[in-house]
Amino acid sequence: MKSKAAVAFEAGKPLSIVEIDVEEPKEHEVLVKIDFTSVCHTDVYTLSGNDPSGKFPCILGHEATGTVVQVGESVSSVKVGDKVVPLWKPECGECDYCKKGLNFCSAISETQGQGLMPDGTSRFSYNGEIIYHFMGTSTFSEYTVLADISVAKIPEGAEEDKVALLGCGVTTGLGAVKNDAQFEEGSTAAVFGVGTLGLASIQMLKTLNASRIIAIDIFDEKQTIAEEFGATDFINSQKIDQPIQDYIIEMTNGGVDYSFVCVGDTDTMNAGLECTHKGWGLSVIMGVASGQEKIATRPFQLITGRTWKGSSFGGVTGKTGLPELIKEHMAGKIDLDPFITHRMTIDEINTAIDLQTQGKSLRDIITFA
Amino acid sequence: MKSKAAVAFEAGKPLSIVEIDVEEPKEHEVLVKIDFTSVCHTDVYTLSGNDPSGKFPCILGHEATGTVVQVGESVSSVKVGDKVVPLWKPECGECDYCKKGLNFCSAISETQGQGLMPDGTSRFSYNGEIIYHFMGTSTFSEYTVLADISVAKIPEGAEEDKVALLGCGVTTGLGAVKNDAQFEEGSTAAVFGVGTLGLASIQMLKTLNASRIIAIDIFDEKQTIAEEFGATDFINSQKIDQPIQDYIIEMTNGGVDYSFVCVGDTDTMNAGLECTHKGWGLSVIMGVASGQEKIATRPFQLITGRTWKGSSFGGVTGKTGLPELIKEHMAGKIDLDPFITHRMTIDEINTAIDLQTQGKSLRDIITFA
Repeated sequence: MKSKAAVAFEAGKPLSIVEIDVEEPKEHEVLVKIDFTSVCHTDVYTLSGNDPSGKFPCILGHEATGTVVQVGESVSSVKVGDKVVPLWKPECGECDYCKKGLNFCSAISETQGQGLMPDGTSRFSYNGEIIYHFMGTSTFSEYTVLADISVAKIPEGAEEDKVALLGCGVTTGLGAVKNDAQFEEGSTAAVFGVGTLGLASIQMLKTLNASRIIAIDIFDEKQTIAEEFGATDFINSQKIDQPIQDYIIEMTNGGVDYSFVCVGDTDTMNAGLECTHKGWGLSVIMGVASGQEKIATRPFQLITGRTWKGSSFGGVTGKTGLPELIKEHMAGKIDLDPFITHRMTIDEINTAIDLQTQGKSLRDIITFA
Repeated sequence: MKSKAAVAFEAGKPLSIVEIDVEEPKEHEVLVKIDFTSVCHTDVYTLSGNDPSGKFPCILGHEATGTVVQVGESVSSVKVGDKVVPLWKPECGECDYCKKGLNFCSAISETQGQGLMPDGTSRFSYNGEIIYHFMGTSTFSEYTVLADISVAKIPEGAEEDKVALLGCGVTTGLGAVKNDAQFEEGSTAAVFGVGTLGLASIQMLKTLNASRIIAIDIFDEKQTIAEEFGATDFINSQKIDQPIQDYIIEMTNGGVDYSFVCVGDTDTMNAGLECTHKGWGLSVIMGVASGQEKIATRPFQLITGRTWKGSSFGGVTGKTGLPELIKEHMAGKIDLDPFITHRMTIDEINTAIDLQTQGKSLRDIITFA
């Protein structure tokens, strides 16, 4: 079938809106009509050409919601008409990770990393030439094919446009605090980077009654939104005359209980660990750093009681855990409205990408209408 | 009073056996006659001159047992005649760390770091010149003065000579596994460095029914003792033709569940993290690295589910936790005999230091008789 899509033909170039060919779903695959998609930092990162695993031409996009329009053979977990969130982290339920309740499902990771469906081929083409999949989702196409283990069913009555945001960034920020750090109510925290991940972290910290939430960014204009979300303090790290970790240790009389690092810079990740309190500090990194850069600290930092962790999709399992998170949104416990900066059509996606690159949009909701 | 002591007059020189002057204990201090002491790696490290915080002349030693022979004013936790373990990590019970059950008591850390008693003076002198304390313990003197928060009472009936070993290294290795890692029974582990810390880790791993215990060292002759303690595999990391982390990942089909790094080398600490399994691997470092060297890894290692921690005295609180550990030894759950390599007198302490430096002794038990 034909589908309107924003194709990344080359790294570093704008996406091209073209009509591609989409093949029918094979066994254990589903065809999904994307209703809403947004642009996440990882799309921008791969498009930039800095992602060594990026393959072109490809169809980016991994934060979305859609409707199942066709199912291949042996699909039992969803049916035609179901509303779903595409999952860049599938959940097979059978591998070692899934059995432990961890979201690192290995069932289709090899082919997904190659931009292909589990059988080693693509369902996308343009003028007869292959177009690669991306993160197993490729939501910048109106019609996309996913493995059946790569879709989470949306509970009845959810607001599909907003729930799209739970496909990656917001879930990561919320879950890093709640699941990965297991944040203890009433504690203090520092959040590095006031983008979608950072603000989602701040929202969850506020929900969990953090006694102090220190937001750090390099742009003064982030202060307002950080405070709107719940930050009690804001620091422009470029306007202080000492290392940010020393500054935070001084202002908190020893360091914060937790820190969350939502930027891809390794120096900031190091500061994130080092600004936590001796004895019990816990730092969670969730930014994507380019290829070979390393985080580094003196072993003394760990020996004296600090713990260093990472978060991937906030520790949330897709098929089983994400519907629970959507129910929390439906119950009013998660507010997605303040993350939506603009609403656009797919024809304006390059604008959304520019705004995301410049940090001027949190999330722009894109439709194909 | 006069006391026989092994004094470190200068970094890098052998200790001198001399008769020093020891002042009476002041308020909240106790005078302890050391019955048994051993040499730990930290004594050797500070004596070498590589420890930037080392102050000379000083009296080293921090793994010991002794008898309280005099108490200063306001001492209520111990009385004359009590058998005690000197604590290089005191426990005041009132600071933020102690209240949380963490062994980073801050009550006297500033003066202890300066080689002084809590009032800012020393109780040791030689020919009228000050001799500094070390780690708040200075057990290489037959008579030593400690803060009352720096002694743990030994339960009646314990074997005082063996229990001395619980003053530092063995407790660190045992506790890193049990307390800091909270090792899950039946899991797999790698232990880097087959010295006292590594062997104590292996002993606890065996007690907790580890399904596989991989010991790593750079000397072939460590294989026998590693296996005697319970290692199921031994690797000489200098005799393989690939990075040790890659080797372990291959031999375990993905990595170990836990790793324990008992050496001071930062490259080994990095390998320790990287040899653990994606999704759930936990690495605990406990070696002392010199000054400014850093551990370093790609953030990807944490983002994909690994956790990096440190252990200090195995997470054991001194005054309250150590007596419990001693009871475990009395109940036959901890075997200290295999850690004792030689028994010597204080006059032979330089031999004990040489053997410790060369890795030829696990622990030599030293008496003043």
